[in-house]
Amino acid sequence: MRAKALMTAAFLAVGVDSSEGAWAQDYVVAETPATLIKQVETLRTAGLHDRMGYEIIESLTTEIGPRLAGSAREAAAQDWAVAKLKALGFSNIQVEPFEMEGWARGIETAHVVGAAAQPLTITTLGGSVATPDGGITAEVARFDDLYQLEAAPDGSLDGKIVFIDLKMYKTQDGSSYGNTNYIRGNTPSVAARKGAVATLIRSVGTDSHRFPHTGGTRYADDVPAIPAAALSNPDADQLSRLLERGPVSIKLEMTPKSLGTVTSGNVIADIMGSEKPEEVVVIGGHLDSWDLGTGAIDDGAGIGITMAAAKRILDLGIAPRRTIRLILWGAEEVGLLGARAYAKAHADELANHVIAAESDFGAGRIWRFESRVGAEDLPLSGPFTGNCGLWALAWGRMKRAVAPM
Amino acid sequence: MRAKALMTAAFLAVGVDSSEGAWAQDYVVAETPATLIKQVETLRTAGLHDRMGYEIIESLTTEIGPRLAGSAREAAAQDWAVAKLKALGFSNIQVEPFEMEGWARGIETAHVVGAAAQPLTITTLGGSVATPDGGITAEVARFDDLYQLEAAPDGSLDGKIVFIDLKMYKTQDGSSYGNTNYIRGNTPSVAARKGAVATLIRSVGTDSHRFPHTGGTRYADDVPAIPAAALSNPDADQLSRLLERGPVSIKLEMTPKSLGTVTSGNVIADIMGSEKPEEVVVIGGHLDSWDLGTGAIDDGAGIGITMAAAKRILDLGIAPRRTIRLILWGAEEVGLLGARAYAKAHADELANHVIAAESDFGAGRIWRFESRVGAEDLPLSGPFTGNCGLWALAWGRMKRAVAPM
Repeated sequence: MRAKALMTAAFLAVGVDSSEGAWAQDYVVAETPATLIKQVETLRTAGLHDRMGYEIIESLTTEIGPRLAGSAREAAAQDWAVAKLKALGFSNIQVEPFEMEGWARGIETAHVVGAAAQPLTITTLGGSVATPDGGITAEVARFDDLYQLEAAPDGSLDGKIVFIDLKMYKTQDGSSYGNTNYIRGNTPSVAARKGAVATLIRSVGTDSHRFPHTGGTRYADDVPAIPAAALSNPDADQLSRLLERGPVSIKLEMTPKSLGTVTSGNVIADIMGSEKPEEVVVIGGHLDSWDLGTGAIDDGAGIGITMAAAKRILDLGIAPRRTIRLILWGAEEVGLLGARAYAKAHADELANHVIAAESDFGAGRIWRFESRVGAEDLPLSGPFTGNCGLWALAWGRMKRAVAPM
Repeated sequence: MRAKALMTAAFLAVGVDSSEGAWAQDYVVAETPATLIKQVETLRTAGLHDRMGYEIIESLTTEIGPRLAGSAREAAAQDWAVAKLKALGFSNIQVEPFEMEGWARGIETAHVVGAAAQPLTITTLGGSVATPDGGITAEVARFDDLYQLEAAPDGSLDGKIVFIDLKMYKTQDGSSYGNTNYIRGNTPSVAARKGAVATLIRSVGTDSHRFPHTGGTRYADDVPAIPAAALSNPDADQLSRLLERGPVSIKLEMTPKSLGTVTSGNVIADIMGSEKPEEVVVIGGHLDSWDLGTGAIDDGAGIGITMAAAKRILDLGIAPRRTIRLILWGAEEVGLLGARAYAKAHADELANHVIAAESDFGAGRIWRFESRVGAEDLPLSGPFTGNCGLWALAWGRMKRAVAPM
């Protein structure tokens, strides 16, 4: 993601060089301007050889720590971002606040009751309602996946705790996350429709330690909202083994709280365009994180990647043709609330947004590029790629982005 | 450890074959009796090709779960053990109870206070005292290891929270655990002597997840007992990074409780000897575990290994010459209390104990044998070893064990 975001930004930055004509209009040129290539190479080399991105991530995750959407620590992260951007030399910095419904984790315990009495490690899913006073004690009904649960007759799970035991397997492209995490948001309402009183899902992760993955859940309007938690992988294994022996009842106690209306915000820094300042190119990551970690990967990495890329462009000393807007989104994890607030606040200018990209897939060595470059245009990416096809992705996306202009 | 314990037991079992003279008296024979070798091979083959050991571990850790010394769940594990031994065909089964001081974990939280306010994940060390009402808020004093702390002048840490940031590195033979875990028991009293009010240690483990390792601590009589906890490795990293930036204060809240006198016990099963029934060979593992896991490795593995080995010997259908005593120790993790109680209760018979071994180093594939077999005796182990020197260890230890007789 680092390379992708950096290159996207770099591409737009070098658009300032219009010595051979406006780039957006002649993106199908057979030859890439030599000056442009040189500027891109300068950015790429700088990006690959400094530690600026890491230092930004390290600062955010160490000094702020967890920063749940709408919390005091997310607000502290906004202050951190403004100070960091100023220190890096940005001048057009704004915080755009917006309101949202706050939520905070409470106590969260699960205990098998009866002969095999023992604690199980759970984490409350973001946005979950609490258990009633005294907790919920009920028998567990296990399902291999959400589809199996959906096939259960309505009312067939009256008073039960539904357990979705779907395992996530490692895939290098991360696709298994998308193939698994649908159970997190969808299980509570499907289960409630069948009469269930609470839900447990197997932690959406491929780890084997006893620290379950959180993430948010959601509720449909037409069924009761029931408490929702995730079991760590070893605890899900344990519960499955117990269920092989016979019925299992669990006592759940979860005390998350709705906090009413709280404030989040997007932090925005512009590098003003020289030729078409009203046209905007957006890059960024999200400033909020879940509360159980420090959000180093999700999404400190995106913050570090895009803030460092913007800083490199700033240091190039050439105003870009269009305005490059770095947005450090607030409350992204809990439903893209920052993006929605931005779209609402900037409704009149949306047509002037040429492209927008969020870096939110972690960071690491490049192992594959996806590209939408057609076979006939592949030679165009050559000058940018060097030995590794580095530019194909940005080039392909840029073509699609500017084509409708 | 599986192989070691099994072989030790097997060795003693085949001692029944005295067709070529009492084995203990002629262990320096140049030739190993062929009948003995065959019986040993029968046991070894059986042990390597069934799943009995695993099934015992799976049953204990699933059906009982965590079983802290002196707790109701340790008592449940004793009941489990008696029922399992009966089901396996053992007839001489005893539970020998003993009294101990009980302890139970409570709430355990740590928060950095001030500008970098954030939670840190800790676990209270076993036996630790609680923090005073309202917790302890104090500045952290970091040390690379216990030796550096010992070098600090008395009184120089008045009111501070001592943090021992000693890292454990992976070593295949597990030696790094022994080289690191001395900080767990020793830090509180050394720190208290310097004036500290609480201690944190880096989790004694090589993992990188946010689930700290517990284990017990202890207190010297001549200094105040102060609360002691472990930080997970990522949290210790985080605290170190914060300390590089300047002073850090932490609020600690820990509410463990002393439970007064509670009961633990050893579960004992004898395979009576035919020729010297009063002479005892002890094998076993410990039934108690820490409360944060299910004790599958520490020490479900030892229970499974030794109970299965004893069962194999039982199934051989030949009464051993000496009595083989399987002891499933209680309250081992909190200071070998089961062993001490046994030694006291059996003081009169201790001289009749020929050898005793506890399997408590986990389980896994064999990668190395330690042996005390002298060069001149190495050929003796040959017949037992096949291709892998399997018997060297047991043979070497047996020689040392029987030599004083």
